[in-house]
Amino acid sequence: MRATGAATDLTQGVLAGEVGAIARMITRVERGAGADQLIELYRAGGRARVIGVTGPAGAGKSTLVAALGAEIRRRDVTLGIVAVDPTSPYSGGSVLGDRIRMQALGDDPEVFIRSMATRGALGGIARATADAVAVLDASGKEVILVETVGVGQDEVDIAQASHSVVVVSAPGLGDDVQALKAGLLETADVHVVNKADREGADRTVAELRSMLGFGAGEGWVAPVLATCAETGQGVTELANALNQHHDWLVTSGGMYERQRLMARHRLKTLLTALVHERLDRPVPGSAFETAVEALCRRTTDPWTAAHSLLEGELSGRPKGRP
Amino acid sequence: MRATGAATDLTQGVLAGEVGAIARMITRVERGAGADQLIELYRAGGRARVIGVTGPAGAGKSTLVAALGAEIRRRDVTLGIVAVDPTSPYSGGSVLGDRIRMQALGDDPEVFIRSMATRGALGGIARATADAVAVLDASGKEVILVETVGVGQDEVDIAQASHSVVVVSAPGLGDDVQALKAGLLETADVHVVNKADREGADRTVAELRSMLGFGAGEGWVAPVLATCAETGQGVTELANALNQHHDWLVTSGGMYERQRLMARHRLKTLLTALVHERLDRPVPGSAFETAVEALCRRTTDPWTAAHSLLEGELSGRPKGRP
Repeated sequence: MRATGAATDLTQGVLAGEVGAIARMITRVERGAGADQLIELYRAGGRARVIGVTGPAGAGKSTLVAALGAEIRRRDVTLGIVAVDPTSPYSGGSVLGDRIRMQALGDDPEVFIRSMATRGALGGIARATADAVAVLDASGKEVILVETVGVGQDEVDIAQASHSVVVVSAPGLGDDVQALKAGLLETADVHVVNKADREGADRTVAELRSMLGFGAGEGWVAPVLATCAETGQGVTELANALNQHHDWLVTSGGMYERQRLMARHRLKTLLTALVHERLDRPVPGSAFETAVEALCRRTTDPWTAAHSLLEGELSGRPKGRP
Repeated sequence: MRATGAATDLTQGVLAGEVGAIARMITRVERGAGADQLIELYRAGGRARVIGVTGPAGAGKSTLVAALGAEIRRRDVTLGIVAVDPTSPYSGGSVLGDRIRMQALGDDPEVFIRSMATRGALGGIARATADAVAVLDASGKEVILVETVGVGQDEVDIAQASHSVVVVSAPGLGDDVQALKAGLLETADVHVVNKADREGADRTVAELRSMLGFGAGEGWVAPVLATCAETGQGVTELANALNQHHDWLVTSGGMYERQRLMARHRLKTLLTALVHERLDRPVPGSAFETAVEALCRRTTDPWTAAHSLLEGELSGRPKGRP
């Protein structure tokens, strides 16, 4: 478990918030390496607020994340941005759309922006994103924005890996609110109708509010905000709403449930990644390989083998189930 | 671990090859239940040849599977068919296309046909398919055809869960052979260009053969066959080629490697399904929940927690890795 000198330097650099060290460390975790350092970094972290931003393609998520990031910086809060999207404008340092705002962010030493490539491996991108967030957390970033394009599993992942979830929609995306799947609708802590200068924005806001119901007054009621990320309209209100959600989590005790959900999801993505890695890249003599051999010889069955590989699985399951 | 009387009857019914019992058992495994009986059934199986059939939409896989199934039955071999495709014609007993052939199969008591719904759960459909194959194997089916539409992970799954893999293409599917991804091309034990009566079929066959190279004479060289599933042209040759591949596996020792790959894949899909189930449906007091609690309190880190949940993980990994 001893880290090499270079690895120690890398860890120290991340803890000191050095941009180069953070970048190199995230490159390591993208490749699935650096677990030694990650454990050390994880132990130094735990303070960052993670805000997930998701929604359908074309809703203007990247521009909104840039605008929200600038607003967060104006409040003197340090910031990390992880964009999980192969078409992300952050890649390679290029910027799209709201160029001035993005460059302002890019020149700020207290902002770290990173795009993550979507990989084919099951659980791979969810695991890598969580690891990148752990690196930014350890580096002292107070808020981490995680942007994902709202597709299938990624939506679920971001919702279970964030303290607050912003779901972005926009008028003119096909059937407007219908562009959001039912799951996303309920997942949101804050709803944003972006591109509010477009025709139909008011209707989209009204439709969303009616779909969400009036909120029976129990628990957090997700507000529906209108923004225009390109002009900055509504972005202050978005940052305020996110602070209100955070305060609500803390005062209501909801933070505990949220953290449990996040821990559960973290363990799931990591275990899935480990299982796949161990079975795709065999280690001779390992418990996995012994189980594979026994299965080949049919001296065991898949269920018994799987249960014996999952520690505590046999003792922890409900009665009457094998 | 004691099975109830009804469960024992179900198991006995499957072992006796009763159609109703097989159907009820597969319905159970689709729901993720019946692990007790599955262990018993698995121990009684192990003789079936599993043949995966995959390829892009529009290649005529279902019709080809029906034609191949009829050919296999003419050779007096018992047969199970599992179609992993939400658009499968087998669903609900309805038949498409080659109606007479399909009905001939459907009336044959030695053929069991089942379509599996594609589920959202990660690893869910791969696990359910493998379990359905185990049921059919235990019921005494000598050959099991597993048809999947060639999309992403499903392709990989079928290739790693079958003794022989048939990759089906057809002329006129966009860029013909380009419709096959590189991975599928190499995965095939037998290539089929279906709809051979269509214009361009000869060119597709020639293109495939040139992409596959001439085969340096080492190992199995995947043949490229032309079929017309609707008329039955080439289907005898396909069944012969599959028998040749099976004979080659047995005589070359390749069967051992193939069985290892299948065991490895089986364990991976089952462990993934178990990890997801245990973390999505918490069992108070289980090792998983203890780990989640410890993570919430930050008395552990995700890597240490995950490694301690995977038995043998710490001892079995290579040196120098955490």
